[in-house]
Amino acid sequence: MIRRSHPPAGPEDFGAAGGLLSRRVFLRSGVFAGALGSPAFAEPLTVPPWMTVPGSPFTSYGQPSRYEAKVVRIITNPAAPGTGASRTPHHRLNGVITPNGLHFERSHNGVPDIDPDGHRLLIHGMVKRALVFTMDALAHYPMETRQAFIECGGNSAALYAKEPVQGDVQQLHGLVSCAEWTGVKLSILLDEAGLDPSARWVLAEGADAAAMSRSVPLAKAMDDAMVALYQNGERARPSNGYPMRLLLPGYEGNMQVKWLRRLKITDIPVMTKDETSKYTLLMDNGESLQFFFPMQAKSIITHPSPGLSLKGPGLYEVVGLAWSGNGKVARVDVSADGGASWAPAVLQEPVLPKSLTRFRIAWQWDGRSTTLQSRAVDDKGYVQPTRAKQIAERGSRAIYHFNAIAGWAIVPTGEVKHVYV
Amino acid sequence: MIRRSHPPAGPEDFGAAGGLLSRRVFLRSGVFAGALGSPAFAEPLTVPPWMTVPGSPFTSYGQPSRYEAKVVRIITNPAAPGTGASRTPHHRLNGVITPNGLHFERSHNGVPDIDPDGHRLLIHGMVKRALVFTMDALAHYPMETRQAFIECGGNSAALYAKEPVQGDVQQLHGLVSCAEWTGVKLSILLDEAGLDPSARWVLAEGADAAAMSRSVPLAKAMDDAMVALYQNGERARPSNGYPMRLLLPGYEGNMQVKWLRRLKITDIPVMTKDETSKYTLLMDNGESLQFFFPMQAKSIITHPSPGLSLKGPGLYEVVGLAWSGNGKVARVDVSADGGASWAPAVLQEPVLPKSLTRFRIAWQWDGRSTTLQSRAVDDKGYVQPTRAKQIAERGSRAIYHFNAIAGWAIVPTGEVKHVYV
Repeated sequence: MIRRSHPPAGPEDFGAAGGLLSRRVFLRSGVFAGALGSPAFAEPLTVPPWMTVPGSPFTSYGQPSRYEAKVVRIITNPAAPGTGASRTPHHRLNGVITPNGLHFERSHNGVPDIDPDGHRLLIHGMVKRALVFTMDALAHYPMETRQAFIECGGNSAALYAKEPVQGDVQQLHGLVSCAEWTGVKLSILLDEAGLDPSARWVLAEGADAAAMSRSVPLAKAMDDAMVALYQNGERARPSNGYPMRLLLPGYEGNMQVKWLRRLKITDIPVMTKDETSKYTLLMDNGESLQFFFPMQAKSIITHPSPGLSLKGPGLYEVVGLAWSGNGKVARVDVSADGGASWAPAVLQEPVLPKSLTRFRIAWQWDGRSTTLQSRAVDDKGYVQPTRAKQIAERGSRAIYHFNAIAGWAIVPTGEVKHVYV
Repeated sequence: MIRRSHPPAGPEDFGAAGGLLSRRVFLRSGVFAGALGSPAFAEPLTVPPWMTVPGSPFTSYGQPSRYEAKVVRIITNPAAPGTGASRTPHHRLNGVITPNGLHFERSHNGVPDIDPDGHRLLIHGMVKRALVFTMDALAHYPMETRQAFIECGGNSAALYAKEPVQGDVQQLHGLVSCAEWTGVKLSILLDEAGLDPSARWVLAEGADAAAMSRSVPLAKAMDDAMVALYQNGERARPSNGYPMRLLLPGYEGNMQVKWLRRLKITDIPVMTKDETSKYTLLMDNGESLQFFFPMQAKSIITHPSPGLSLKGPGLYEVVGLAWSGNGKVARVDVSADGGASWAPAVLQEPVLPKSLTRFRIAWQWDGRSTTLQSRAVDDKGYVQPTRAKQIAERGSRAIYHFNAIAGWAIVPTGEVKHVYV
């Protein structure tokens, strides 16, 4: 075995206990040759059947391979069609961009079938002149492009439960996705309307049958908010707001109103259903945290994770996603010994603000039981908290904004389970 | 009209003749209010029909709106299914990422239907040990993610013609796309196999019925080449090489072999069909330029462009895409007076190497005939040439690697036509 003459790791390579390794391990020739799942030494290649017949013709709009039929969104609450969510299968993806077909969906009365020619965006309220925009009118404005994650306020809600719910990355953490968005900066449109000096808030309303409405601080609207028209290059998908959605980078997904039809400028928040009875955090003392806008720094390990079992001891890459609604991810530390020691993962460049960031770290599993965790730190110095700290601060009656450190237990069979550490 | 009290441009705003403007024009309140296509002043919003009925339920894999049915790839050479290309509709897209359903396709004997469990990648030839990789074996290796454009060597070939072919951006320049790719650095796999000191080239072969084969310099293979498994987060699409393709950032698309099954390390190039009778540039003197690998700096204006007519004089944003196979786009200049004067466009950050870069510049059209052009400069100092210069150097018998400046004539009706300047 090549492994014997090219040991994958000496003491100098270890970044922390539990087998976490410096990335320079990967620069050593032959390091993988003895690893489980490594290449076989030359066997003759046979001619596969797909080389013996002409392939399929071109298509006007492409689809994934039929062998990827399992890589789909899972739909929660299917008994009430259109009210609930569908979740991104991050354990089957890699990179940072979520392809449009797999971006998570959340809607309150289904996905409206909007004819863009009949769609209007009204800006009114505390403005000098109320304005109505058609799609053609909006197309005249300067646009910008940026990557941004969107995370539902209810993502990872299951981790408030007293006992760890058994589920995979998709089931537990699938209400976050990331896309490249292009549209018109909202500040340009509000300037066009002319803001009243007393204006402080913006009510955003969607053109769905729920008329989903949220109050947005004017400061955010004038900062980096966008009326987004394009998602990963093409027009935003119907379930993501076609023909336009409000993009509030880093804020709770529910506020980033889809099918945007109306922005009313106000001096106080309107206190809609979704900012009073919902999307607030009920504390143990019966009070609620309201207007909790940015999604705080968070990370999840996508590989290995439940359903992606390890096939025996050896060298692996621990891979995950991190993000912060308050800026850039500054670092991600990974522990392979239940939190006793931590080693820094490599962040995939470019690290963009309010976007998903892919992290990776080499890990040599010795085949014994252990627990993997990741901990994100953002460029504001905020550290992803332990679950114990978050529960101590908030209690366990909340269902929104869970962002504490999660744990995957690895057992000697290679199976991965959700645990609290 | 607000325009009168908020003039969109004074002399200090003009970046060049022909109405090109500094982007600070957009920072002035009310600047658009008099522009054609601008918002109407408040009219009551009616309740659209899609707000009166529950919307559609969630879907496991999403699709674009039915109102975007025109946003599709056009297929050239449909008489020979699977032999030819389909083209990206850049005039209907925005941003930098090309969504997977619209990434251009080029194949030589159709798209093979590959079962990933039966797929193998062989590395052999001048190596210490030949290796065969299954998908599972590759999944053990460290991965990286990067954005990269892929451009077919034959993109924009129509512009070698003596008279300007009338076509839109998609028809003329649609054989370039950009995606986020994730996979294993090829250098890691070649190190695993152990290179012979005399190795200089790599033959890459695809598992399609054409067994598409190209010779790649070993230096490129060891630099930034990747065995790409994921495209925009999900597994690469069948027409883009599922389950794996060779990614050679910046190089001619044809070399980035799809359905990659074999890498043979050699000391000299193998002289395959696609690097001798094809993908070489026939000069007027009968000689051919061979092994012309990187796609040189280039830019195209996507808006306005043929089919996207202007609806009268007013303020517009001239928008386009630029790229360089040799590095980053350093600047893009735009001319609105037939090349007499040029103004720098704003480049959308982050500008990534060997990736598409979106550029934008404000433009006040006075309604008269004019010609728009864009000129890219890369960080190696290479300047996109005029067509006259390129034809003088290469003659007009070539069909590959056309990267000269293109021109769109605007006529007083607002129509846009392809012209040589």
